[in-house]
Amino acid sequence: MPSARTFNVMDATARALNPPPSSDTRPAKAPIPRDAPRSGPQRGHGLDRLEILKRRAADTPGLISFAGGLPAPGEFPRSKLAASFVRALQNPSCPALQYGWPEGHEDLRAWIAGQLRRRGAQVARDDVIVTSGAQQAVSLAAQMIRGSGARIGVDPESYPGAIELFQALGATIIDDHSHVDAHYLMPAISNPRGRKLSRGDRAKVLSSLRPIIEDDAYADLSFDGPAPRPLLADAPDRVFHVGTFSKTLCPGLRIGWLVPPRALRADVLQLKQSDDLQAASLPQAILEDYLRTEDFDHRLVRLREFYGRRATRMERALRRYLPGWRFDLPAGGFAIWVEPDAEPNEAFFLAAAIEHGVAFDPGSMFRAGGAVSPFALRLCFSSVWRDDDLDEGVRRLARCWAEIT
Amino acid sequence: MPSARTFNVMDATARALNPPPSSDTRPAKAPIPRDAPRSGPQRGHGLDRLEILKRRAADTPGLISFAGGLPAPGEFPRSKLAASFVRALQNPSCPALQYGWPEGHEDLRAWIAGQLRRRGAQVARDDVIVTSGAQQAVSLAAQMIRGSGARIGVDPESYPGAIELFQALGATIIDDHSHVDAHYLMPAISNPRGRKLSRGDRAKVLSSLRPIIEDDAYADLSFDGPAPRPLLADAPDRVFHVGTFSKTLCPGLRIGWLVPPRALRADVLQLKQSDDLQAASLPQAILEDYLRTEDFDHRLVRLREFYGRRATRMERALRRYLPGWRFDLPAGGFAIWVEPDAEPNEAFFLAAAIEHGVAFDPGSMFRAGGAVSPFALRLCFSSVWRDDDLDEGVRRLARCWAEIT
Repeated sequence: MPSARTFNVMDATARALNPPPSSDTRPAKAPIPRDAPRSGPQRGHGLDRLEILKRRAADTPGLISFAGGLPAPGEFPRSKLAASFVRALQNPSCPALQYGWPEGHEDLRAWIAGQLRRRGAQVARDDVIVTSGAQQAVSLAAQMIRGSGARIGVDPESYPGAIELFQALGATIIDDHSHVDAHYLMPAISNPRGRKLSRGDRAKVLSSLRPIIEDDAYADLSFDGPAPRPLLADAPDRVFHVGTFSKTLCPGLRIGWLVPPRALRADVLQLKQSDDLQAASLPQAILEDYLRTEDFDHRLVRLREFYGRRATRMERALRRYLPGWRFDLPAGGFAIWVEPDAEPNEAFFLAAAIEHGVAFDPGSMFRAGGAVSPFALRLCFSSVWRDDDLDEGVRRLARCWAEIT
Repeated sequence: MPSARTFNVMDATARALNPPPSSDTRPAKAPIPRDAPRSGPQRGHGLDRLEILKRRAADTPGLISFAGGLPAPGEFPRSKLAASFVRALQNPSCPALQYGWPEGHEDLRAWIAGQLRRRGAQVARDDVIVTSGAQQAVSLAAQMIRGSGARIGVDPESYPGAIELFQALGATIIDDHSHVDAHYLMPAISNPRGRKLSRGDRAKVLSSLRPIIEDDAYADLSFDGPAPRPLLADAPDRVFHVGTFSKTLCPGLRIGWLVPPRALRADVLQLKQSDDLQAASLPQAILEDYLRTEDFDHRLVRLREFYGRRATRMERALRRYLPGWRFDLPAGGFAIWVEPDAEPNEAFFLAAAIEHGVAFDPGSMFRAGGAVSPFALRLCFSSVWRDDDLDEGVRRLARCWAEIT
């Protein structure tokens, strides 16, 4: 086995990798939009054109991207993850590089269960299934629910990956939570609006007695403190609880989780195994080491401050350069949902914005019917390279807006 | 950015991690069976009991496992993968830890396409979709085929992960390739028998004009040389070509690929995105660096020799200790398919073998109907810790066999 010296050498390497590249070093390419709509038959409102624009934006040098829902790359704990990788490789049987069980690594599941218990949910290690990102968790939940009913209720604006998945599975999407067979929602922090579910709406959803997919992707990134009590705590027999490390650590590990109702665990696990056998072992092993050696709570406190500060900075820029645009300051997450004061053609405005060196997520992406009206856009403050880019990006948007309206 | 010195420090770290743990250092736990059958409603022949036995075997200290279809952990290029990880992190925009496009990383797709072109298939970079392992590639292909017909032809013994997937999708499995709507097969090296598809059978399958899922998982591990011309080369318009790094590099990266017929690429990509957005970025970035810096052909030559040598060693042990058992020496892959000279109860024999400190994959796992007769077993020579374990494991099997028959 490698000697103790190896650790020290590695730590030195890790420190050399820190801090992240100086703020003058721009990435070669703009980050890649996560929520990019895909081409496809289900939604006949020009998404193909939007997809082309998204890809063009990602390839435009110097573009400031408010698109995609990506976390800040400067906040990835690169050196610590590298150190965890090297330590994980020192296990003689090397589970980091080998096949594993479909439900995921034990210590990782125990950690996830522990986090949920702290929030009031009675979750044991074996209730947790590690998934290939939150998207797979939502997909597994939706496949389980499909049998029990095809009308899925979502918020009027919701996560495009879920909307398109439900449509692909043949469900009918209702952009309201009344008279549906199941609910999909993000109670802690919604996407794209960054809202918390109100007490009244929470009670209403729980009283419907229907299955609920609780997507908790942004729950740890509420600007005012730790994640709240999940719906899972109050209806464990019909909540499919979904979480992820993509927003709080990094998306590249592609690790999420699903806590399904206990009675369905075996069926979900079977479905998961048919899909892709298991979540990748390497990221799981890295995570296990990282969570054992780092103070994740402390990281979350820092991230909440970081993104909260960015939200405020973008808010100020919007009030200054685009005073006619309406928006609420989000309670958490990565973005501000904006409703401008005119109704230009959405794809035309996005193309013009890209010409001006700025990109955003058009509002129609977040609507099940793909409605372009009322005209809206999601502006992500999360992944720009420097805080200054928030001002400059909004200035570019304002210039473009003045030209076309 | 980190200085050039960082590379050298990392290289030193990497070398310190090499060689793999000495042959006296046993892993804490036996490797985990990949092909472990799962519990579930589709197959009513006692697989629950087999599943329990598999998990028991994995937790038995000192057990020699011939189960699972796992690669040899001693052959994982641990230090080189660690070095690749550290180098991948040095990219300022850090795509290794960020979201990526659903089709996968460009350079990785280009490499895969290049390998297939060398084998005679006309494949461009954009024909390749990077998947979360070969299992997801088979799953995507099967979902595309389902619409066109539900009778899928497989070999009489085939890969359990595919069989159970097809059953879960509602297909009818025919363990023969006549009169079916689609074929699933492993032409280069089959699993579990380790056979090459004969020229006659190849012509027969191609002449059926049906969609074909070509699972090429073991193609690079033929003992007599490089992978052959794929079916994809001869019927690109209806072959779904599946490959993986799990057998030739390591399973922990969970990276495979699918080359679907070009006309279906957009639909497959949409399905892939609904499933899990994308394959994990981190393993893709590691792979891109690794394949750029290492001689993969040389690695394959070495692996073919390594596994070929193990196959021969197990063959000798079988002839010596269990001279009544019938088998063909495999042409490649990880296992020998054995047909013993008696018909004990399968689960009973497996339980007894575990008591004797050895495990195997029972033959029924590989049959669509779950038939336990003719009695057979798959013995994987691939993942035992030392070559000596092959002799000792077969000795234990022989002792157990003598006791129960």
